[in-house]
Amino acid sequence: MTGVKDLMHKVTHIRSPSGSRPTSPTAQPTSPTGSRPSSTISPAPSADGTASPRPTAPAEDMTPRMKENGELETKSEVKKRVAAEKKEKLKQEKEAARLKKEAAEKAAREAADVDYSADKYGKLPLVQSTERTGIVRTQFVNLSEANVGQDVTFRARLQTSRAQGAKMVFLVFRQQNHTIQALVQVEPELVSKKMVRFAESINPESIVLVEGTVQKPLEPVKSCTVQDAEIKIKTLRIISEAPNLLPFSMADALRPADSAEGATVALDTRLDNRILDLRTITNQSIFKMSSGVCNLFREYLNSQGFVEIHTPKLQGAATESGSSVFKVSYFKGNAYLAQSPQLAKQMCIAADMEKVYEIAPVFRAEDSNTHRHMTEFMGLDMEMAFEEHYHEVMETIDGMLKSIFAGLKQRYADDIAVVQKQFPHEDFTFLDETLVLHYTDAIKLLQEAGVQQGTPPAPIGDHDDMSTSTEKALGVIVKEKYKTDYYIIDKFPIALRPFYTMPDPTNPLLSNSYDFFMRGEEILSGAQRLHDAPMLEERMRAVGINPDDMKSYVDGFRLGAPPHAGGGIGLERVVMLFLKLNNIRRASLFPRDPKRLEP
Amino acid sequence: MTGVKDLMHKVTHIRSPSGSRPTSPTAQPTSPTGSRPSSTISPAPSADGTASPRPTAPAEDMTPRMKENGELETKSEVKKRVAAEKKEKLKQEKEAARLKKEAAEKAAREAADVDYSADKYGKLPLVQSTERTGIVRTQFVNLSEANVGQDVTFRARLQTSRAQGAKMVFLVFRQQNHTIQALVQVEPELVSKKMVRFAESINPESIVLVEGTVQKPLEPVKSCTVQDAEIKIKTLRIISEAPNLLPFSMADALRPADSAEGATVALDTRLDNRILDLRTITNQSIFKMSSGVCNLFREYLNSQGFVEIHTPKLQGAATESGSSVFKVSYFKGNAYLAQSPQLAKQMCIAADMEKVYEIAPVFRAEDSNTHRHMTEFMGLDMEMAFEEHYHEVMETIDGMLKSIFAGLKQRYADDIAVVQKQFPHEDFTFLDETLVLHYTDAIKLLQEAGVQQGTPPAPIGDHDDMSTSTEKALGVIVKEKYKTDYYIIDKFPIALRPFYTMPDPTNPLLSNSYDFFMRGEEILSGAQRLHDAPMLEERMRAVGINPDDMKSYVDGFRLGAPPHAGGGIGLERVVMLFLKLNNIRRASLFPRDPKRLEP
Repeated sequence: MTGVKDLMHKVTHIRSPSGSRPTSPTAQPTSPTGSRPSSTISPAPSADGTASPRPTAPAEDMTPRMKENGELETKSEVKKRVAAEKKEKLKQEKEAARLKKEAAEKAAREAADVDYSADKYGKLPLVQSTERTGIVRTQFVNLSEANVGQDVTFRARLQTSRAQGAKMVFLVFRQQNHTIQALVQVEPELVSKKMVRFAESINPESIVLVEGTVQKPLEPVKSCTVQDAEIKIKTLRIISEAPNLLPFSMADALRPADSAEGATVALDTRLDNRILDLRTITNQSIFKMSSGVCNLFREYLNSQGFVEIHTPKLQGAATESGSSVFKVSYFKGNAYLAQSPQLAKQMCIAADMEKVYEIAPVFRAEDSNTHRHMTEFMGLDMEMAFEEHYHEVMETIDGMLKSIFAGLKQRYADDIAVVQKQFPHEDFTFLDETLVLHYTDAIKLLQEAGVQQGTPPAPIGDHDDMSTSTEKALGVIVKEKYKTDYYIIDKFPIALRPFYTMPDPTNPLLSNSYDFFMRGEEILSGAQRLHDAPMLEERMRAVGINPDDMKSYVDGFRLGAPPHAGGGIGLERVVMLFLKLNNIRRASLFPRDPKRLEP
Repeated sequence: MTGVKDLMHKVTHIRSPSGSRPTSPTAQPTSPTGSRPSSTISPAPSADGTASPRPTAPAEDMTPRMKENGELETKSEVKKRVAAEKKEKLKQEKEAARLKKEAAEKAAREAADVDYSADKYGKLPLVQSTERTGIVRTQFVNLSEANVGQDVTFRARLQTSRAQGAKMVFLVFRQQNHTIQALVQVEPELVSKKMVRFAESINPESIVLVEGTVQKPLEPVKSCTVQDAEIKIKTLRIISEAPNLLPFSMADALRPADSAEGATVALDTRLDNRILDLRTITNQSIFKMSSGVCNLFREYLNSQGFVEIHTPKLQGAATESGSSVFKVSYFKGNAYLAQSPQLAKQMCIAADMEKVYEIAPVFRAEDSNTHRHMTEFMGLDMEMAFEEHYHEVMETIDGMLKSIFAGLKQRYADDIAVVQKQFPHEDFTFLDETLVLHYTDAIKLLQEAGVQQGTPPAPIGDHDDMSTSTEKALGVIVKEKYKTDYYIIDKFPIALRPFYTMPDPTNPLLSNSYDFFMRGEEILSGAQRLHDAPMLEERMRAVGINPDDMKSYVDGFRLGAPPHAGGGIGLERVVMLFLKLNNIRRASLFPRDPKRLEP
């Protein structure tokens, strides 16, 4: 068995000499190559390096892997997995040998046939920008019964193929998160048996260029997103060929994690082969929505007069403390990666920018291996000068978040439905008037429900910090009582907040700060900040920070600054919690954690 | 003389006991404190550490500084500067002493006066969010003659004050890039002499809360952005106080670099005190426009079906070569900062995302100390699958850039005018149909004009790289001949482009690549990429890169990828060149270069 890379080397790329290269869709294609089993091979998440362009582990890899819940496999789980992997590998090898033999026999049998459609299929030469025919390429999203009878040309991925006898093959083509059924059927002088066999032999995930006619299917195609139209194929050519064996099939990749209907793909396997994984319609929808969150965030804040800023990620000093920061070699010295734009965005307020936001990566050198931590994630930060009360800002943030939730539901209803098939969940609910709980009232709810935390478990004190599981318990209580997945907790104990937080004017134990929650998990933390330099310096010294170490920051307030407040959302958390993806890595294109820097 | 920090410590912050704190605008203010010279002190860029919250250098700092042109000062220039700085310091100290004496005398003279407006001015207690009166705060941008007679309340910076006799003082207030004139005039039972003196004594750059009446000025106020209305002040209170002496005055900061009319502020001094510098109306306009460029970029690409992506800046390997990369300590190993999203955005194309863009910081560990290089800047990147020809993508980029230029001119005409006062320049010109020059034709233009480059200077060969000064010379030739500041050069020699560039199909010495220029400087570099894995590997080996070192990237193409092309703009370059700011640091909030990591 050969690795994908080697297979790819054997693929012949016909390139004509410079200047005489035929490239239009009607150019003479090269003869069909390769063969493929007529049924889709859907190996379970395989540890077989030879079948994977990015092997996740050798066949006998006894290293414990991370499971869905963030824990490592136990020894016995590892043994079980390795045994299963070995068995699967043997099975695949046998199957591949059998199929190869069959294909060779078939090819021999039919070598004598006359092929009257030899110019209608095959492999195209490399697209090197030689010509522009301007022929319009159709998008599936625009196709329906209304187009029946029309001739169309399109580029798409082949998702699956299924032969029906020797004279017909059904194909499913995919463009991002839209799929359509097509068929190649023997027809005298138009479609030869060889063309049908070629269609059947194309490796799934290859990119093809198709000409065909839109027709009405015999019955609605339930397995495709376009259900009331299908394509009768006239020409079929390969633009870019996928390998014979993929790390996993699209069908497996689309099954919910707990599916009983077939193999599923482990998260680590997906992330190791992220490019393939990202092609599922689920992921196409997730990242369309992730893009949507950013657009909605900006649209709302732009409408409120905010200005977008870009602050440096390279810092001269390791600031803000709390989380650890990454150290960077910077010419002959060192720099540090910003763990948030906190200081810089406040400096923009001191610089009269009034209302600012930033969407940028933030970096955390924390060795946290959980479902909700990454070392690099996207911060959607905002900061705003206010006139009288920090609730002006809290209400702006609330308006922004509600606008995001409503916008997602309105613009991405189809995508939410797609994701729900793989990640079943109740629709995200929020109230027109957001629930704002005083911190002490939130604690009271927990106390009344008998929630305990710590080791050994104990009742929660009025000014105690809430653990992640306590926060989740509160989410359940709130959902039950107030029918909402979204709420605010206001007035956190000052001891739990960073040094730059403004104390409450009436209770010195509390502060003018708030957290925003989705489904019982915190997505935004914010507060009124200290805008008075002497007070800020006093607080810094109290927590052991030398104000001179953050001179530029403190200087901003010495030069006069307006009262201000703000906050920051984690983009991936919002997407994960809105869609209940259960692991933050699923909301990041190429996630980074203490153990993963690739791909 | 006391440092600003110490001065600030002496400021009394009156805080009433919890629960009984008066905070509404009508609350009893504390008595006026401090005195200020009646004429504005506008020190030249001062090396006097005591006068600056962020001293740029001690009085005798003999370290050569960077000049406007990116070169360091010569020894004699340093001596000259230090001497001037000493003289200036002495002058300032004398002036300060004189003014202090005068103020003390005045205060003594007038101590016996009755103050009937004691409750109408002074310093407000710290804004700690105690109360919400809901009184609407006015924005200058909405004020004009139409509002005459109305009572208004607003928060603003005091920009300047100018006494006219003992009974009247003119103030200029600023809100971001809008200014308005106001006056405090003695009036029996309403405005006392003491209140006028208080108004005169407020340090410029302090933030104040003002109640007043809009009235028509005697003549249009040419020095303010609101020219047909002024404010007659009824109450005047300090929200946040600026120090007695600033690193430089707003008036100096607003003068063009070559102004003969008064002191100007050196770039390094500005950057050392960036928060103060950013408050100039020029900078407020520059960064509003910078935010506008990003909005226009996204609006255009969103309308073309693009999706926003966020790719990791932490990379497992130092890739792409060419520019150097920063090394990061990553737990027990190392990571590297992405020098562009090139590889990741192409991987998104292989993952079927079709049309993607990203706005994110990029990092370059190049020790380049020029007017156009920074170690961290904002990349506006895009990548797009195409059907037949990379010109589909080149035209999309062209459409996007023209939409940015047109949008800036349309939405930011006032801001462009503001910036032009400090940075005089001809309006940026571009054609409806963009000029596209073939590389060899561009070279021909240079050859015909007799442009030479290199040491010793020599005529330019057909496939030679163009130096920065050659590119500028071409910009002048093109402007002369085609009347445009914006054009494209297509078909660069393959030898000058990165390994992932698609060769030209007819001339093996050329490539399917392009650069976009503004005023003779490159702002975008892009190309059709190699989407065929074997071809890509061949090119990697040819330039000495082991394909295994960039496995995730190459794997994407092994799994089948559509033909695609793209490019990336440098945000700060676009802003710098559109507004002719002459130094890229002026287009970055907090610029980073080999010598600067602060503020």
